[in-house]
Amino acid sequence: MATSRILYELAGANPGLRFSSYCWRSRMALLHKGLEFETIPWRFTEKKAIAFSGQGRVPVLVDGGTVIFDSWAIADHLERGYPAAPSLFGGAAGQALTRFINEFADAVVNPGIARLIVADIFAVLHEKDRAYFRASREQRFGKSLEEVAADRDAAVAPFRQSLDPARRVLASQAFLGGTSPLYADYILFGSLQWARCVSAFELLVEDDALFAWRERLLDLFDGNARRAPRA
Amino acid sequence: MATSRILYELAGANPGLRFSSYCWRSRMALLHKGLEFETIPWRFTEKKAIAFSGQGRVPVLVDGGTVIFDSWAIADHLERGYPAAPSLFGGAAGQALTRFINEFADAVVNPGIARLIVADIFAVLHEKDRAYFRASREQRFGKSLEEVAADRDAAVAPFRQSLDPARRVLASQAFLGGTSPLYADYILFGSLQWARCVSAFELLVEDDALFAWRERLLDLFDGNARRAPRA
Repeated sequence: MATSRILYELAGANPGLRFSSYCWRSRMALLHKGLEFETIPWRFTEKKAIAFSGQGRVPVLVDGGTVIFDSWAIADHLERGYPAAPSLFGGAAGQALTRFINEFADAVVNPGIARLIVADIFAVLHEKDRAYFRASREQRFGKSLEEVAADRDAAVAPFRQSLDPARRVLASQAFLGGTSPLYADYILFGSLQWARCVSAFELLVEDDALFAWRERLLDLFDGNARRAPRA
Repeated sequence: MATSRILYELAGANPGLRFSSYCWRSRMALLHKGLEFETIPWRFTEKKAIAFSGQGRVPVLVDGGTVIFDSWAIADHLERGYPAAPSLFGGAAGQALTRFINEFADAVVNPGIARLIVADIFAVLHEKDRAYFRASREQRFGKSLEEVAADRDAAVAPFRQSLDPARRVLASQAFLGGTSPLYADYILFGSLQWARCVSAFELLVEDDALFAWRERLLDLFDGNARRAPRA
């Protein structure tokens, strides 16, 4: 019998290269819940393949007869649908508070990473995605992908500083979720894993508490994220 | 019988003017727990008055025979010591996740506010605190207090943007804590109340979701924070 859960994940030319920060949030959430699932590689321009979800972006989770899109909605679905499995939020207050970290990742971390690796993302894309990606991102940044990435050796310093809130948390606890990882950890990890999968450019220095924290996340679930293909 | 709880709060020349962001965190936490307490005004240079705490900064809470300093430690003490009163964190995960907001306030929000209002703070201080404050803050900023604040009409825009994570959370819930306020709300509120007490410079515009959120916080506990003296 086929597993009844399918996660559509953004992929590169190499279908095994799964790099979306949002898809990594959902994959880690499924693993945290101990649920079996299959993944299907998806490219930006394959709108028809997920048209059944009523929209055009991944992650999309098909869980039996239920279709859920948007990483936050997927986490919420998993928490409600599998209450006996390990919690992603640690309760209603934990879920509400996790939203802040979700918005911090979306508003601060991901834009900060995008400008550092956008040219590397382009390089790993399937040929059919490249024109769309270049046009949409160059419009967003107002310059060429190559120009955006040109000063990244300097731009990485303020990016690293933007992670100070997380870094400071790790001075007093092993994970953002406390003594063990919660969905909040997977949110921030997804951002760093996005960069790690597409780029050799190092976002973190080795003596950073966030570097060691990322190592712990890479080790989870039999090293699922560590074993994931990289460009 | 005198109440058995005393909170030492930073005060200005006007002893009723209580403006420390950290002291506001602790005051709101005590109110949230429904505990009675008295406050004692304290100035930066009154080190002897809190020497019994083994250090030289406020907030300091004396709760019966227990002395606690540092706003996070005070919140932790109140949560552990009064488990039957309304929770500040909503559980262990909630407390761990609240740390992120605490560090965000300390690393991002408070430095952002300080540069906007530092000259206004100086103006409300007791005369005996002024030399200390000017010297320590001018060393920190590397310029005079007046020079720091000179471009605040321009500097307020990036400050407002730095609050985007909180603003985005409020698009989907009334408080950072969810449907009702938790300590996470008091942390961020403390930062804004610090500015509100010492300065007429408006950090928020009226159509900002954070403005409406701050209004809700000002209304809590019979308007305790709204009724607090301002410069």
